Amino acid sequence: MTTLHAPSAAQNASHPSVEAAVAMAREAHLVGSTASILGWDQETMMPAGGIEFRARQLAQLAKMAHALSTDPRLGDALAQAEHATASLPATHPDRVNVRELRRDYDKATKLPAALVEELASVASIAQHEWAEARKASDFKRFRPWLERIVALNRQKADCFGWDRTHGERWDALADSYEPGCTAKQVEAVFHPLRTRLQALLDRLRGAASHPGARVPDGRFNDHPMDLATQERFARFVAGTIGFDFERGRLDRSTHPFCGGSHCNDVRMTSRYSERCLLDGLGSTMHETGHGMYEQGLDPHWIGTPMGEAVSLSIHESQSRLWENQVGRSRAFWTWAKPKMDAHFGGAADMFSVEQVYEACNVVEPGFIRVDADEGTYNMHVMIRFELERAMISRDMDLADLPAEWNRLYKDYLGLTVPDDRRGCLQDVHWSGGMIGYFPTYTLGTLYAAQLFEAARKAIPGMEEGFARGEFTPLRTWLNEHVHRQGRRHLSADLCKVVTGAPLSADPLMRHLEAKLLPMYGL
Amino acid sequence: MTTLHAPSAAQNASHPSVEAAVAMAREAHLVGSTASILGWDQETMMPAGGIEFRARQLAQLAKMAHALSTDPRLGDALAQAEHATASLPATHPDRVNVRELRRDYDKATKLPAALVEELASVASIAQHEWAEARKASDFKRFRPWLERIVALNRQKADCFGWDRTHGERWDALADSYEPGCTAKQVEAVFHPLRTRLQALLDRLRGAASHPGARVPDGRFNDHPMDLATQERFARFVAGTIGFDFERGRLDRSTHPFCGGSHCNDVRMTSRYSERCLLDGLGSTMHETGHGMYEQGLDPHWIGTPMGEAVSLSIHESQSRLWENQVGRSRAFWTWAKPKMDAHFGGAADMFSVEQVYEACNVVEPGFIRVDADEGTYNMHVMIRFELERAMISRDMDLADLPAEWNRLYKDYLGLTVPDDRRGCLQDVHWSGGMIGYFPTYTLGTLYAAQLFEAARKAIPGMEEGFARGEFTPLRTWLNEHVHRQGRRHLSADLCKVVTGAPLSADPLMRHLEAKLLPMYGL
Repeated sequence: MTTLHAPSAAQNASHPSVEAAVAMAREAHLVGSTASILGWDQETMMPAGGIEFRARQLAQLAKMAHALSTDPRLGDALAQAEHATASLPATHPDRVNVRELRRDYDKATKLPAALVEELASVASIAQHEWAEARKASDFKRFRPWLERIVALNRQKADCFGWDRTHGERWDALADSYEPGCTAKQVEAVFHPLRTRLQALLDRLRGAASHPGARVPDGRFNDHPMDLATQERFARFVAGTIGFDFERGRLDRSTHPFCGGSHCNDVRMTSRYSERCLLDGLGSTMHETGHGMYEQGLDPHWIGTPMGEAVSLSIHESQSRLWENQVGRSRAFWTWAKPKMDAHFGGAADMFSVEQVYEACNVVEPGFIRVDADEGTYNMHVMIRFELERAMISRDMDLADLPAEWNRLYKDYLGLTVPDDRRGCLQDVHWSGGMIGYFPTYTLGTLYAAQLFEAARKAIPGMEEGFARGEFTPLRTWLNEHVHRQGRRHLSADLCKVVTGAPLSADPLMRHLEAKLLPMYGL
Repeated sequence: MTTLHAPSAAQNASHPSVEAAVAMAREAHLVGSTASILGWDQETMMPAGGIEFRARQLAQLAKMAHALSTDPRLGDALAQAEHATASLPATHPDRVNVRELRRDYDKATKLPAALVEELASVASIAQHEWAEARKASDFKRFRPWLERIVALNRQKADCFGWDRTHGERWDALADSYEPGCTAKQVEAVFHPLRTRLQALLDRLRGAASHPGARVPDGRFNDHPMDLATQERFARFVAGTIGFDFERGRLDRSTHPFCGGSHCNDVRMTSRYSERCLLDGLGSTMHETGHGMYEQGLDPHWIGTPMGEAVSLSIHESQSRLWENQVGRSRAFWTWAKPKMDAHFGGAADMFSVEQVYEACNVVEPGFIRVDADEGTYNMHVMIRFELERAMISRDMDLADLPAEWNRLYKDYLGLTVPDDRRGCLQDVHWSGGMIGYFPTYTLGTLYAAQLFEAARKAIPGMEEGFARGEFTPLRTWLNEHVHRQGRRHLSADLCKVVTGAPLSADPLMRHLEAKLLPMYGL
């Protein structure tokens, strides 16, 4: 395993061109951080009447940030800085910052303003049309808008450029969410994952024993619990696993997210459902994973790539790890169940630790991705990846999307999709112009499993510690090996550096099989 | 009485130079509105860790707003626009906007950047020194900083310019808070106010009957009430008197304020004290008066002077009117007492409407301005006005400030100030560099009384309506005559237009005498 640099280590003064580029990047980041607070406020605090004016505030900030990010003086400084840092080691902070600022600058400058505007305006109408089409469960209504979005995304990919010998157009789109990611790489991990996952799901389907069936008085995931207490309990768990409430907040919003402006001001949200504490707690632990990544960034480098998250998938690895590897573990519930009982005063006393643990881990294929369990979730994502890849390469006529969607759901999850609303119209991403985004969910889930295995190897007794409420060793390990690295490595390289191996489906499959097979009596 | 223009009336297209100036002003306002949300967030929501980065965000926005407000292209557009609007009536929206934008532009451009920076940096240290000096009750420690602040403010006044024949230097400072205000005008109202107020206080002091003495089981202003219920009740009252919670919020903060970014997104805060519901309710009604002014501005003109509050004093008139003329009236409590009882379930049943009404109106001279009652409050303000006027004109040596302060407290309020902490070091304004601000508190109180008398004349049965919870007629009247006028008139002119008379101490004195004399058995 390569030795990791200590990111905050004292270093010699940077070249003036590096200083200049970094200073300009910090200015642009500062504008973005303000927009981020306004965005958080809009979802959590803003009165309904504020929506129209808020859009104007955000548009002004977006314009200012764009002007700063595409300033030709930044390009000039970067050109000089590239020269000045050429002899530094590849992981030296200055070299990393210059390399990643160049990546960002090229992305920001390669798209003609007219295309950016057209994409934004088409996506804005398409979102509305999609919402209407979904209500009516009528893909035909949405199809012309999806055609336009696909066409514009193909143009966008061509502006960015892509490897015409070994790659494909989709790669250029994915690169915005997951730098360096290619469809071939994704396929190389997704293919074995799908095969093994399908085999596992087949076995579970045939199992005689089903965890949900063993609970006498209803199931814990359909059991009313007081909402205000759920929120207090979720806050307690978030704080115990390591979210620092002196440097962040947890509020409610319709769609949970993690935002904020700085590692010392992280804003996450969650939502709670009356009849399923596990929904709200899972959502909170998920966002807490994101939140601890943000809080764990190096304050010295905030506003520069060295103080930024690597990619969506690595961000997702942090949320999935705390949600799944920790929050759905027996060890976690050994600690959490008595704490929960103390919070709720008897409302869940009739459930044992084992029953709650099982309630977290029921596997039941369904139509809706966002409601999916840990066992089937990735199937949903892989279906979307295959479809969007085919859309962009023109291997598929968009008229065939519903049929293709339904065929894959039958094939991968054994389900007959009843309508487009619960089928190809369920997600907001494509209508919002985002193609190349979906795989990051599953890549993140895979990274989570692989990082967790590495942490377990590095930290003796880690999971036994969970049962005693000891989460600091894991959080500290993630902080050192992931959070503090900023954008030093691309996701795939970070994985190799930290875990000693390229990303693979094996750790996730080991995790699922070790947990689910015994639970299903297999 | 001059007829008021309907501010939203359809109008002919504006001259391109007016459009240009207004568009630039709106851009600057938009930046300011973002800063305002960040400011609110800082006081109400931001985790402690965010403070340092927030300062950077706000500094960037301040820089951007300053660049936009002092852009020479704005100056050019205004010069053209002045020519283009010269023949319009003085109260035509275009003419008003151009006139007031010119006022703002001149203010923003007349101060050299070096002076602005020096003032900011001296004030920043002076605030710290003042806080330490106040703790130690040691004026001498603060004096050198006050010397510098006074010197810089004199420079500032000279940059703005002032009438060297009829005016004085202080006028130029007050103009920033209260456009058009002069010390002579202030004195002309304050002098009779002081004489009559002193006579009233003397009579109350000699009265045999004292309202507080008639309550059997302790006094309502020292009676514990549940804090969360206080907040709910205050919210209920704010909503009933007319604050629109679809277009605003009410939160808690250490120092109550009213901010926000737009008439459709007004953020006000309050604070509640366990042993005195009247404190929190009064503070909430005060801020609600500010909030309804902001919500009542013309949405069409937001971002331009026609959609802005006239001045600090008129803003204060709205808060004082709802806090004092309404919230301390018998009619208000006739309605509010049963509502309060319904909220608190018995916690204040032992008090009658009359006892609560009297508890709001106890007059007791004290050392601290912010704790002062309605009867003595203005004495505190007048003392500060006299002193800061003398500081700026050099009629007073700053070494004599404590002695002068104490002499005036003895003279006006009959009090012997025990130390500087409870004397000349109690307020934050001077250390923050704000000279010329204080009189707006009393001017606002006077405008409140005069506007209230005009509203009473215009609305038959207005106060009887309060007793039935009917506050809409008053709010609607204020909206039409004050809020919707924006900066069409300067404060003094608005008063004449709306009430038919120049500002006078008479309405406030009538209000106080009519209420307090019978209550004190006089």
